[in-house]
Amino acid sequence: MSAWVLPDHIADVLPSEARHIEELRRELLDTARGYGYELVMPPMLEHLESLLTGTGEALDLQTFKLVDQLSGRMLGLRADTTPQVARIDAHLLNRQGITRLCYCGPVLHTRPDRPHATREPLQFGAEIYGHAGLEADVEALQLALDCLKATKVEALTVDMADARIVRSLLSGLGVDAARLERLHAALATKDATELASLAKDFPAATQQALQALITLYGDAKVLAEAAKVLPRTPVIQQALEQLQWLSGRVQGARVTFDLADLRGYAYYSGVRFGIYTPGASDALVRGGRYDEVGAVFGRNRPAVGFSLDVRELVGVAAQRPLKAAIRAPWLDAGPDAAELRTAIAGLRREGETVVCVLPGHESEVDEFHCDRELARDAAGRWAVRAL
Amino acid sequence: MSAWVLPDHIADVLPSEARHIEELRRELLDTARGYGYELVMPPMLEHLESLLTGTGEALDLQTFKLVDQLSGRMLGLRADTTPQVARIDAHLLNRQGITRLCYCGPVLHTRPDRPHATREPLQFGAEIYGHAGLEADVEALQLALDCLKATKVEALTVDMADARIVRSLLSGLGVDAARLERLHAALATKDATELASLAKDFPAATQQALQALITLYGDAKVLAEAAKVLPRTPVIQQALEQLQWLSGRVQGARVTFDLADLRGYAYYSGVRFGIYTPGASDALVRGGRYDEVGAVFGRNRPAVGFSLDVRELVGVAAQRPLKAAIRAPWLDAGPDAAELRTAIAGLRREGETVVCVLPGHESEVDEFHCDRELARDAAGRWAVRAL
Repeated sequence: MSAWVLPDHIADVLPSEARHIEELRRELLDTARGYGYELVMPPMLEHLESLLTGTGEALDLQTFKLVDQLSGRMLGLRADTTPQVARIDAHLLNRQGITRLCYCGPVLHTRPDRPHATREPLQFGAEIYGHAGLEADVEALQLALDCLKATKVEALTVDMADARIVRSLLSGLGVDAARLERLHAALATKDATELASLAKDFPAATQQALQALITLYGDAKVLAEAAKVLPRTPVIQQALEQLQWLSGRVQGARVTFDLADLRGYAYYSGVRFGIYTPGASDALVRGGRYDEVGAVFGRNRPAVGFSLDVRELVGVAAQRPLKAAIRAPWLDAGPDAAELRTAIAGLRREGETVVCVLPGHESEVDEFHCDRELARDAAGRWAVRAL
Repeated sequence: MSAWVLPDHIADVLPSEARHIEELRRELLDTARGYGYELVMPPMLEHLESLLTGTGEALDLQTFKLVDQLSGRMLGLRADTTPQVARIDAHLLNRQGITRLCYCGPVLHTRPDRPHATREPLQFGAEIYGHAGLEADVEALQLALDCLKATKVEALTVDMADARIVRSLLSGLGVDAARLERLHAALATKDATELASLAKDFPAATQQALQALITLYGDAKVLAEAAKVLPRTPVIQQALEQLQWLSGRVQGARVTFDLADLRGYAYYSGVRFGIYTPGASDALVRGGRYDEVGAVFGRNRPAVGFSLDVRELVGVAAQRPLKAAIRAPWLDAGPDAAELRTAIAGLRREGETVVCVLPGHESEVDEFHCDRELARDAAGRWAVRAL
């Protein structure tokens, strides 16, 4: 096999896309910064138990493992940054009050999430720790929407769910992890037959509620319908009320509900959301409340947040045009060269791209579109003129 | 062991350092952009033979290896980005003319390079392909210096060497890879005894030249001395003349020479340089010419470039003060809330950080220093006032 063949679902990002990703990355980080979210950079590699304890089997299967030559211990390449940021909040910062953190860096997956997904997403996310009230959920949702708007993604739909509903329906039934995963998958794909088969030894009321769940998607009427058909337990009632309250505070996006949607990581513990736009095959953003995620690090703090893949975003965000550059000749020594150097340095300080044409390459096509050149004017001074 | 213990030589980057790294990252990329270098993002993971063919044993030992579940083939985590960028130039872009590329992303090392080094540097670098003349070397060197100046690193020294000198001295002697590595190490550490022992069966002139090499460091006088004591082969003469020519074109930095220095990767083929500043334990930047690096990808193009570790840079670059933020109250519904939201959004658009104080957290210490707050003025409008 040729040396330039990359592994499946792994790709180089070439200049025009890389520039777009870098622009989006800055807009996302600057938006989070505007809300007071502090940037952290957790490592790519950690001890496996730090990365995986308490996070569920899906993340385990997604995580590349290798042996540390220094210690002989198993390391994992992060497949998700959220558990790392929870560790930082719990252990390193260990603040009493609210902590807002954000991050942006690559994660690696052993297998692609979807048929055309990359195994190396560039994960951006933001998390707010220390506030149990719904105000934190509002802020996380609003920040996620503002992030997408900053990157000029339009026509957004927030799809809401709550992890407590299914958990409450199944509580006390002693469902093991394998069956739970299949139940979640059947709910997510709305597979009534599979769901009936998995639930056949559950109490009749539970079976009925689960079957009802997969019909509970659509606009605001879903919540009223859910209140009628789901068991009136305190947990379910609270979940529905909170969804109602939160959905009333979403600004600048359509709101829908899909109460059976439990896709993504297993650590969610309350309201969850996905944000969609036409043209993207899956949710651009997934987020919600995960109050338990820091427990393994000795600090069970309320937490809400979201994450997205910047490389996915680049497919739907409008690309900004490449700013045209300036060509400049290459001069070696002498007073001429010194003047030219000063002129070039000044233009670069002003944010211009100045490409020096090296000797012998005058007739090449520039990769940067050059619409101007630096040349001597009538008075003998270096000046920019149109090409 | 506790779940929050990280592997040795792996660390989290916490907010104040992360902010600084992000600032430096943008300054470096923007400086390279100003010179017309296009950003590329090669993957973290590649087939092992793509990463390692032709790059030498040192890089092999530094590279974490793992098995691809999809293909059963061995993958490597990149320990250096230069061979990847050479692959992109040779195979993906395959342009006829000059190609200027830059990159910034994590690399991983199985073992730290130095006693206190991280195993996860954030590598920034720039490469110019397609020009065999020294003008490309001048540009790479000048860009490296401008990058450091953009990050406010002062008192720079460029230390120059040339990979051809040692190679020419040893050519035709049939030195195997293991001995070559020990010879390079003895030269780098100026260990005359070890050097004598490794060279004892070489011709007397070679032994003498190698011993002379380890004294050939210091200012410009070194080149004149080298011309006297080294064999007058065409290769060595060319190397010394090119060092002379290039060193005369370094602006804004002291120039020294260390003709025995061959540290770093094995792919260098011509003039090499390190850039030093007081306070950094090792070179901040390493670079030079590596014309052979694309050969394995089917295209042996002239190439010059350099790289640096942004996390190393953060230790010597002056940190910019954190811009103070604005506190704002949290309001739920009603016309008051809508007005407040508009005021906050306006401030954020202007680049301000506005931290909303969630209910119950009014007396907490802000992580962002807030020197202003958003409050109603006498006329009842939301306005910023000093705290």
